[in-house]
Amino acid sequence: MRNDTFDTIVIGAGSAGLAFARTAADLGARVFLIERDALGGTCVNRGCVPKKILWAAGRTARSIAQAADQGIAESSSINFPALIRKRDAHIADIRASFADQLTEKGVTVRRGEATVCNANTVVVGDKTYHAQHLVLATGGRPTRMEIEGAEHLQNSDDVLSWKARPERLAIIGGGYIGCEFAAIFRALGSEVTLIHNGPNILDTFPKDLALHAQSGLRETGISIQTNDSVTAIKRDDTLKYFCKSGRMGTADVVVAASGRSPNIDQLGEFVKALKTAESGALAISNQFQTSCAGVYAIGDVADRLPLTPVATADGTTLAHMLHGQGATVANLDLVATTAFVYPPAAFVGSTNNAKGKSGTVTPLAQNVLSQSSHDPDFYQLIFDGKNKTLTGASIAAEGAEDLIAMASALIAAKASANAFTDATPVHPSFAEEFFSNTQTQE
Amino acid sequence: MRNDTFDTIVIGAGSAGLAFARTAADLGARVFLIERDALGGTCVNRGCVPKKILWAAGRTARSIAQAADQGIAESSSINFPALIRKRDAHIADIRASFADQLTEKGVTVRRGEATVCNANTVVVGDKTYHAQHLVLATGGRPTRMEIEGAEHLQNSDDVLSWKARPERLAIIGGGYIGCEFAAIFRALGSEVTLIHNGPNILDTFPKDLALHAQSGLRETGISIQTNDSVTAIKRDDTLKYFCKSGRMGTADVVVAASGRSPNIDQLGEFVKALKTAESGALAISNQFQTSCAGVYAIGDVADRLPLTPVATADGTTLAHMLHGQGATVANLDLVATTAFVYPPAAFVGSTNNAKGKSGTVTPLAQNVLSQSSHDPDFYQLIFDGKNKTLTGASIAAEGAEDLIAMASALIAAKASANAFTDATPVHPSFAEEFFSNTQTQE
Repeated sequence: MRNDTFDTIVIGAGSAGLAFARTAADLGARVFLIERDALGGTCVNRGCVPKKILWAAGRTARSIAQAADQGIAESSSINFPALIRKRDAHIADIRASFADQLTEKGVTVRRGEATVCNANTVVVGDKTYHAQHLVLATGGRPTRMEIEGAEHLQNSDDVLSWKARPERLAIIGGGYIGCEFAAIFRALGSEVTLIHNGPNILDTFPKDLALHAQSGLRETGISIQTNDSVTAIKRDDTLKYFCKSGRMGTADVVVAASGRSPNIDQLGEFVKALKTAESGALAISNQFQTSCAGVYAIGDVADRLPLTPVATADGTTLAHMLHGQGATVANLDLVATTAFVYPPAAFVGSTNNAKGKSGTVTPLAQNVLSQSSHDPDFYQLIFDGKNKTLTGASIAAEGAEDLIAMASALIAAKASANAFTDATPVHPSFAEEFFSNTQTQE
Repeated sequence: MRNDTFDTIVIGAGSAGLAFARTAADLGARVFLIERDALGGTCVNRGCVPKKILWAAGRTARSIAQAADQGIAESSSINFPALIRKRDAHIADIRASFADQLTEKGVTVRRGEATVCNANTVVVGDKTYHAQHLVLATGGRPTRMEIEGAEHLQNSDDVLSWKARPERLAIIGGGYIGCEFAAIFRALGSEVTLIHNGPNILDTFPKDLALHAQSGLRETGISIQTNDSVTAIKRDDTLKYFCKSGRMGTADVVVAASGRSPNIDQLGEFVKALKTAESGALAISNQFQTSCAGVYAIGDVADRLPLTPVATADGTTLAHMLHGQGATVANLDLVATTAFVYPPAAFVGSTNNAKGKSGTVTPLAQNVLSQSSHDPDFYQLIFDGKNKTLTGASIAAEGAEDLIAMASALIAAKASANAFTDATPVHPSFAEEFFSNTQTQE
């Protein structure tokens, strides 16, 4: 067999591409994996992983601050440069382990920019490669804002490479990325302003959960300006931002967190000609096929849900489809989503804004004893009114990122409200309030 | 109606008695509640609540220590006297709110020692009271050890009233109470030795979970002596304890955490004549009736599961049985249990030691990124091998006290392994590892 011919060529070694490549190789396929940057893609290098490490440090900073406020410990702040050194060393280890894994599994990795010629041919540098299948897993990038002075803006890639913590930070965009940065840098001690163009932040989240998170962020001292946007940035002796509302502010750094765009246009004319969805991402069939037979798209470049666990699941599934016995595509109604603020705000399944849903909604609960911090906890369970099966859940509490996965399993198991009534939670705990209110609502 | 005659007399205003009294009053019953000590009983005054507040402070201490170890924050210790002042003020607030609630609901509260004359008559001081029903909810107390020098021992009531933290602490008994004290005081900076008479601590917990917790406690520097017991205590210039193994140790304080006994014998000859179970607690029917018609027992004085949520559930249920439309008795297979160590170790349902159970057991999982601390996480899911329904779960992870309630709901919903396969957890999270290993085991 020629060393430029493979079963499948994968472009992009992020969560989707890596999952595909590893699984396909395990299934015996000859895989050629092309990456222009670092192994691990956005999640490992510029997303979930570095963000969660900062978030965990912010949580420690909050514990210390709360204990100090209560007079039970001395105040102390997080050494940001030391934190970043630890974090980056950890990420370098992950990247190295990916490289080892790929070598071990016999995946051929090529570093460089790929240009797609047709469904079976890709060029990297001066070499041409061929394969039966082509998988596009090139991910996305922060969307560049088109405003005056945009060159003074930083984006999420920049934030996650900072070696020093800015004292005054303005963030444009109250999606989950903007909210997480706001929460984390506020916890680490920065002054933070968050400017959002809608009536409330986290506008893809269930509304009650979003409002709860918004009020929590405000309580920590973050200034949130809703229904506003930044129209210009100017740098003279200071960095100034100008808002549609007429407001003006100064900051050490202004971060644009106003959306992400799929990486399509650098791959050549062939890929540019593929059909895109309304989101701008590549339109795919329920088998991940693009508008061209033999060309597949997974991860953030495809029109699915731009989340790492979906990318990983879809990469694994597509590998089984192309090189194994097939597999079931992940049900997006069972995908758990979390904004890592304090406490994390998570949801799964139908939201109370969903059309055609009716059911029982539990009220806000608070149990100061279950938490070392005194953040209010929130939950909401959505039951299908007719047969009382759980169809959606929102949770804002310590550990919500794990609890929401259990809620997803409960939806998958078609649990009724009785499942909560019959269970006896631990005392004292958050779940105890959560469950007992589910009982009394019946 | 005479003011010494009621529908029901309840002896004991702990979790069980309070739940009964509040619910019965809501249902319109005239309730007479007798308490010789503080409202709230063991849980609020000498158990779950003060313990959990110490545990939360210990968790903060650990976060600070871990951040300091990593060079990202300064080291700092918890001011124990300040913590205790905060804690006790909080508990006083809870007690006051109980008193207000009882007054509001029209429950008559009498402080004093009760002597039961017969199923309808109770004496407090020089007054006699009558009722149709008698509910015994007198709880339990630490069992006194019968060893030489036992007068030098302290018990869990003492521990939870300490105003200063002992530097060197020896604990006798590796049940959940002994383990929690060991974990908490170690986290707060004490040197701790734990002496347990069995081959491993937490011997009522699923074995793999118990061994995981034991190894975690040892890693924090707690000295655990298994298969050993203390046979004598001597105080001269220091406090010394002597073990069956021949070992000898010195400590500032030696705590006996070697079991609890039901409060039966101080209630008079009538109660002493009631039938007891093998546990020493009052034998009860599945309607909470003791061996005497019209006399009921709930909470730790009854032969059920000595846990607050069971006491609360049973108190509520019995009130509905005596004064309402009846209610379903809590299913003990769905009661979640947690040892508040670090991370908390929790289980529900069948254990892998259970007879007649066979099924799938998942391996140990660890996800350092999901935690700010680097404690290994553990989980185990027990499925009925035949129809793959979840029948038991063990979790040791941050938030396990809440996750285990969700596991209980999943057992109640008769979830299969597919419920975990179909759900897509958040990345990075503990649940992610947990769920993906459930998938691969199929």
